[in-house]
Amino acid sequence: MVHPTVPQPTLAPSAVFDWLDEAADLRARAGLTRTLRSRPADDPVLDLASNDYLGLVHHPAVTGAAAEAARRWGGGATGSRLVTGTTALHTELEDELAEFCGFEAALVFSTGYAANLAALTALTDPDTLIVSDAYNHASLIDGCRLARSDVHRAPHADPDAVREVLATRSHRRALVVTDSVFSVDGNAAPLAGHCAAARAHGAALLVDDAHGLGVLGDGGRGTLAVADLAGAPDTVATVTLSKSLGSQGGAVLGPRRVIRHLTETARTFIFDTGLAPAAAGTALGALRLLRAEPHRAARARELAHTLAARLTAAGLHASTPDAAVVSVRAPGPEAAVQWAADCRTAGLAVGCFRPPSVPDGISRLRLTARGDLTDAQITEAVRIIAATGPA
Amino acid sequence: MVHPTVPQPTLAPSAVFDWLDEAADLRARAGLTRTLRSRPADDPVLDLASNDYLGLVHHPAVTGAAAEAARRWGGGATGSRLVTGTTALHTELEDELAEFCGFEAALVFSTGYAANLAALTALTDPDTLIVSDAYNHASLIDGCRLARSDVHRAPHADPDAVREVLATRSHRRALVVTDSVFSVDGNAAPLAGHCAAARAHGAALLVDDAHGLGVLGDGGRGTLAVADLAGAPDTVATVTLSKSLGSQGGAVLGPRRVIRHLTETARTFIFDTGLAPAAAGTALGALRLLRAEPHRAARARELAHTLAARLTAAGLHASTPDAAVVSVRAPGPEAAVQWAADCRTAGLAVGCFRPPSVPDGISRLRLTARGDLTDAQITEAVRIIAATGPA
Ligand SMILES: Cc1ncc(COP(=O)(O)O)c(C=O)c1O
Ligand SMILES: Cc1ncc(COP(=O)(O)O)c(C=O)c1O
Repeated sequence: MVHPTVPQPTLAPSAVFDWLDEAADLRARAGLTRTLRSRPADDPVLDLASNDYLGLVHHPAVTGAAAEAARRWGGGATGSRLVTGTTALHTELEDELAEFCGFEAALVFSTGYAANLAALTALTDPDTLIVSDAYNHASLIDGCRLARSDVHRAPHADPDAVREVLATRSHRRALVVTDSVFSVDGNAAPLAGHCAAARAHGAALLVDDAHGLGVLGDGGRGTLAVADLAGAPDTVATVTLSKSLGSQGGAVLGPRRVIRHLTETARTFIFDTGLAPAAAGTALGALRLLRAEPHRAARARELAHTLAARLTAAGLHASTPDAAVVSVRAPGPEAAVQWAADCRTAGLAVGCFRPPSVPDGISRLRLTARGDLTDAQITEAVRIIAATGPA
Repeated sequence: MVHPTVPQPTLAPSAVFDWLDEAADLRARAGLTRTLRSRPADDPVLDLASNDYLGLVHHPAVTGAAAEAARRWGGGATGSRLVTGTTALHTELEDELAEFCGFEAALVFSTGYAANLAALTALTDPDTLIVSDAYNHASLIDGCRLARSDVHRAPHADPDAVREVLATRSHRRALVVTDSVFSVDGNAAPLAGHCAAARAHGAALLVDDAHGLGVLGDGGRGTLAVADLAGAPDTVATVTLSKSLGSQGGAVLGPRRVIRHLTETARTFIFDTGLAPAAAGTALGALRLLRAEPHRAARARELAHTLAARLTAAGLHASTPDAAVVSVRAPGPEAAVQWAADCRTAGLAVGCFRPPSVPDGISRLRLTARGDLTDAQITEAVRIIAATGPA
């Protein structure tokens, strides 16, 4: 028998989760309530909210590849690929992704989130200092928290700050980690500066190219190719299959020894069911389409510039896009929600980012310049955003 | 300019990852090397390795649902469901899963891993003590590490120990977390005991029913239904869509206020692309098939008992199955790998679990009694396992 030594809260089972309702009230008062909106299959709105940067998600070659993969390989991977084996489909996707992006090897994960958790935990140890950009994506931040390493949060996009903390560290190893293109404003990281800082101090570089793959570089080969870092022995990239490639999943790209290490030690690889065949097939179908139609990447970049220029000309506070994402500042979280809702009423879907999804606390509309938009659609989008915007 | 204050390792870029090769050597010397084996589409071996407990992964109604979902809804979800909207397919899956398992509501995630990270981080705070079974799955352990709460690792399957730590805690809140069926040995958690301990001390209960859904309970409604905990106001379940439902993904099931809280605050929901439509379709197809053919669940349980009994009769050290998983102890990691390889040569695929995938350090073969196996196949599996086993 157990004898309690301190007085216990005597909560009825029905009161155990009362605190969640209190938290909901606090969110409501701060204008930070989030609700799921239903989306019909044939949504008539003009879509500038999705991360389908190349407009491939409904392409028949892509959805057909999903169907064929499910038919041939089954609905799921049936277990960890270390236990139930790895299909030729997964291997082809890994080989083609690595080759396309210019890396020695690749390992595919069930999500981009899982790929980031894997890279951060498996490529670090207690004698590693992780230097992480302050605006990094949530999955990189969670990876830092799961790693058994010290983490230094470096000021945003500041290679000098990175260099200084690397220089004065007491850890044997270091890993510099950054998004290539930051999800909210669409601005690019100073990769050359980060790389120089890392190399000056024997550190490795990890770059999350979620928003670069398919958009930046020759034919969409990604940010690492642009920076001439693809295939470097001290550089690792992660990508998602869920944006330009119109699917679900993620991958780590790097030297063969890195991929081997991840295969054998990364918890989100060992203890997670493999990516569903349909998702692998979708991504492979999209990658092959992009190889066959390389102009899609440049088109998305061009459209982003056009979109940003026209928004600025309309008097709005738009970001300068380094890839396919453009953001527009809103006066506050409630105004951002209202603005996005008014856009939708007028026939335009836009993203609405509020705390905690914005690292600097500034609420914004987030627009993606899908490569298959027409010039007339861009004009229409700008018209609606300007017309519905706060005075 | 930065002036280093401590001597820095002057590593060439090509030497930055040398330590990974040293780690590989250490693994090799301990017999813990892992390699990916390729699996053909029409693998002729008898498969007792997969988690496809009901044998649905190749069912045409299931793979057909995957194809139809991709065709109708696209290859990917195109963003977080909070940004790009939630399809009727995701909502149907959530509603039908919740109803089937007896919960008020459900929220679907991109993986079971992500569902566990979400439940553990969103349902806890710095004033919460998490009491976690020592043998819990890696994703629950990672969830504990990501939560901003103290974590107590309780001895395996020991409600008295749970009760004691709950009684003597200084935290306002507590969450007891356990697998329903432990992945390695297939043994069930003492849920009634855990629940009584939690209720005596105002704690919530979180149960990962990854290996129970589709196998345990009336028609496969899961472990929580068996324990009469489905729908309880203080109980939350997580499930995967990647095992009995032959797909990829996961879900959290619980009171509506819990699901609302997760929707609005869980990082692996907010910052992760939604589950691919094909995966949602696959899982929904499998769930509907299971509802139409409820005997599949009981059949998997029966076969597991038969399998374990025959292995024991053959002189092997088999676990007593509480669901569809049976394990057989091996003398050590290298012997386990050899045994599994010999089984494969003889035409039988089995799982091989070694440290760190076995919480007690004991290497094992892991067998799953898929509900569509025949009696003759069970006999053949036992014959091969016994014939290839270490003396
Ligand atoms: C920069 C970045 N990294 C990683 C992820 C996670 O990828 P996924 O959604 O494919 O899991 C996202 C977005 O979802 C992202 O924006
Ligand atoms: C008990 C348990 N929970 C969670 C998971 C993770 O689920 P998923 O593979 O669908 O991400 C697994 C296995 O993969 C598991 O065995």
